[in-house]
Amino acid sequence: MDISADFLTEAKALLGDKGWRMDAESLEEVATPWRGTYLGHTPFLALPASTKEVAALVKLCSKHRVAITPQGGNTGLVDAGTPHGEITLSMRRMQQVREIDPFNNSLIIEAGAPLVTAQTAAEEANRLFPLSLGSEGTATIGGLISTNAGGVAVLRYGMMRDLILGLEVVLPNGEIWDGLSGLRKNNTGYDLKHVFAGAEGTLGIITAATLKLFPQVARASAWISCKSARDVVELLALTRDHAGDTVTSFEIIPANAIDMVRSEMPNVRDPNPSDLRWRVLCEISMARESHAREVMETALQAAFEAGLAEDALIAETLTQAQSFWTIRESIPLSKRAYGTAINHDVAVPVSQIPAFLEVTEKAILDLSPNAEIIAFGHVGDGNLHYSACEPSDATTQVLSNQADHITEIVHTQAMAFGGSISAEHGVGRLKRDELEDLRPAAATATMKAIKQALDPNGIMNPNRVVRVD
Amino acid sequence: MDISADFLTEAKALLGDKGWRMDAESLEEVATPWRGTYLGHTPFLALPASTKEVAALVKLCSKHRVAITPQGGNTGLVDAGTPHGEITLSMRRMQQVREIDPFNNSLIIEAGAPLVTAQTAAEEANRLFPLSLGSEGTATIGGLISTNAGGVAVLRYGMMRDLILGLEVVLPNGEIWDGLSGLRKNNTGYDLKHVFAGAEGTLGIITAATLKLFPQVARASAWISCKSARDVVELLALTRDHAGDTVTSFEIIPANAIDMVRSEMPNVRDPNPSDLRWRVLCEISMARESHAREVMETALQAAFEAGLAEDALIAETLTQAQSFWTIRESIPLSKRAYGTAINHDVAVPVSQIPAFLEVTEKAILDLSPNAEIIAFGHVGDGNLHYSACEPSDATTQVLSNQADHITEIVHTQAMAFGGSISAEHGVGRLKRDELEDLRPAAATATMKAIKQALDPNGIMNPNRVVRVD
Repeated sequence: MDISADFLTEAKALLGDKGWRMDAESLEEVATPWRGTYLGHTPFLALPASTKEVAALVKLCSKHRVAITPQGGNTGLVDAGTPHGEITLSMRRMQQVREIDPFNNSLIIEAGAPLVTAQTAAEEANRLFPLSLGSEGTATIGGLISTNAGGVAVLRYGMMRDLILGLEVVLPNGEIWDGLSGLRKNNTGYDLKHVFAGAEGTLGIITAATLKLFPQVARASAWISCKSARDVVELLALTRDHAGDTVTSFEIIPANAIDMVRSEMPNVRDPNPSDLRWRVLCEISMARESHAREVMETALQAAFEAGLAEDALIAETLTQAQSFWTIRESIPLSKRAYGTAINHDVAVPVSQIPAFLEVTEKAILDLSPNAEIIAFGHVGDGNLHYSACEPSDATTQVLSNQADHITEIVHTQAMAFGGSISAEHGVGRLKRDELEDLRPAAATATMKAIKQALDPNGIMNPNRVVRVD
Repeated sequence: MDISADFLTEAKALLGDKGWRMDAESLEEVATPWRGTYLGHTPFLALPASTKEVAALVKLCSKHRVAITPQGGNTGLVDAGTPHGEITLSMRRMQQVREIDPFNNSLIIEAGAPLVTAQTAAEEANRLFPLSLGSEGTATIGGLISTNAGGVAVLRYGMMRDLILGLEVVLPNGEIWDGLSGLRKNNTGYDLKHVFAGAEGTLGIITAATLKLFPQVARASAWISCKSARDVVELLALTRDHAGDTVTSFEIIPANAIDMVRSEMPNVRDPNPSDLRWRVLCEISMARESHAREVMETALQAAFEAGLAEDALIAETLTQAQSFWTIRESIPLSKRAYGTAINHDVAVPVSQIPAFLEVTEKAILDLSPNAEIIAFGHVGDGNLHYSACEPSDATTQVLSNQADHITEIVHTQAMAFGGSISAEHGVGRLKRDELEDLRPAAATATMKAIKQALDPNGIMNPNRVVRVD
């Protein structure tokens, strides 16, 4: 994209000296995503410090028909926030907690703040902001809302869109929509926050959000060994029978993922070594710690009697519970260190997980007998992060050449089991065309109609989610 | 609206003999809303029996530019589902439970089924569908989704839009969007279910939904007497400190509402008579009944010590708990029997409730000293149903003439306290123009753009929510 000298002059003037960069290093940094596997390019980096500056810049872009890619923590995985010729609008200078109201259980925070800022602000007010995921120190509120992030507490608290009460958004024409209501009930028209949430910056730029806070809870955390994926799924049902909807996390971890973490990160310890193939990290959270622990113990006792669990460790301390999570959260980085990883983010109905795992593994091993398959994640939501891996020191590197074929296998099987090929990571450019083939035509047509109605000039993160020519 | 003979011939043919009515009685019935305070009119009543029939009819309407008002249980309160010249499309013949999957905690049900059908189907599978409100025997799934209904368990489980996993919708061009996914995570584009939910039938016709089910829980129910609204709000915070997010309902009921219920329904008993001005109906629900009761007892003990509650009764049996709810749910009907009622559905931040009540009452009594003010509802969500009433046997009937002025007072105060004039009932035609004045212009413009993009011919329940000329 060519941007004119006029545009540049006006943009620099309205953003001020601290509000823009054009040096090669800065431009390359924002054009390189977290995983570093593809490289974008951008002619200009805008760093607005306020909603008004965002609005003024978008108005200018609208006038000059300059396309914008908004960027948060740059931790996305689907090529949504990497510029490909667009100017980049980074939210990194807008990180303020504007207001916290513990009585109303709400928090107003700017979009550029990392998730940890919201978690900490809530905690200081004796409240909980429950979204939790590996990149929480870097991923921003705006990015998490724009991608409708998931994480490890979805079972109990829902996805990011479920955790917002209101939004402030700069629309594609540069107008500001102040929808920062802290009301829990507000049926006053179409619910626009749900239109902008999950839109990956294609309909407007989220500049601030009102988040829902919750009462703090005490957790009982268990590390459980199971012999089959079928047992894991049945263990979930049994646990919910005992604990109701206080089951907060229910993560599946295969034994080979633990081996991989330990070989790449030697200081990480296996809390309870076992020859069985699967581990579950289960958390129950309740107002009283004694109740949570009592329910966890009763559920595990029943699981032993039913033969669904062979061994289990309930964390005695927060540190021990944290050590369970360290393993879980180290899997993505360990995979990168290990070598090649062909990654997927699929969901299937919970009941279909065992069959999906079996069929998919067989198909991949038929193609690539030495592939190391790492399938882990949020069983409670039916969401698995599914990777075929190959060590970087393998004598023959075959996996990279088979990437498309492996992805086809994983996605075909996910769809065959009534699932989704993008559970929580989103669409971006990466899955845009594949989803256009898979999605009902009526859905794609409706999405394109919304995109064209709200961004008629096509300047907002164009060609992510849906292609509009 | 004139409908042509051609349209009628084609419509009758595709719907079959049981699929339409044109007799005066049937047409009057669907044009008269539940409260019976305004009368619409309609030239034709369509009663499709399947999604395909809905789609064929909408396609025909699109061809002939015939406007449609979809109708569920006709229990709406904002003049959204009453036809005003449009043909009426009643969903009453589509009530099937299509599928229930207890393992996936999901239920597929047709839009014309009343809420009680979903509740019962869930219960039979040992699950809970938590939405609960007074009209649950009549209000339909489609209507509840289209109006994003609230009810008495929002504090814990959210509004109706939060309880859907997927939708099946007939679009304004007659195409069917099958989005009945039972997946909990599915980030594959704009989340269209949230576009159609709460749209009051203006963007398409919801024909079926996949609902989220929850584990069943045991409840502890308490009927608590408090001396001030301030104490009620502080009692809520204290209860949540003890019970976390297991506080499921927290309803405020003024003493004069109990008097009104008892005078209009003599067989209803006051469970614990008191001279204090306010009652709270509080429910805590947990997997174990003993835990719920223990937490309730501890919270109430702390409330007594803090002087926030003067007296409380914990239900010993389900029947007793039900008797608490009977009073709460009888208030709307009792108001109708009592006489004139000028009703409002407002929300303010929870912390602002006491001040809102005080200021608003004073302003109304200054205008109308004999008005009986009944303010009750969902304190936990900041949502109050606020009415000024006058007995039908009063010698001078003044309230009806003051209705507009009273509504202006209530709405002005709700907005002044950072609130909303439509918390859970919606917009319809009743509040459309007032909300266009109150809402940020950028929000209204965005809503109109969505409406025009998805329904360019303006045939779907026109001029509800937003006016599009």
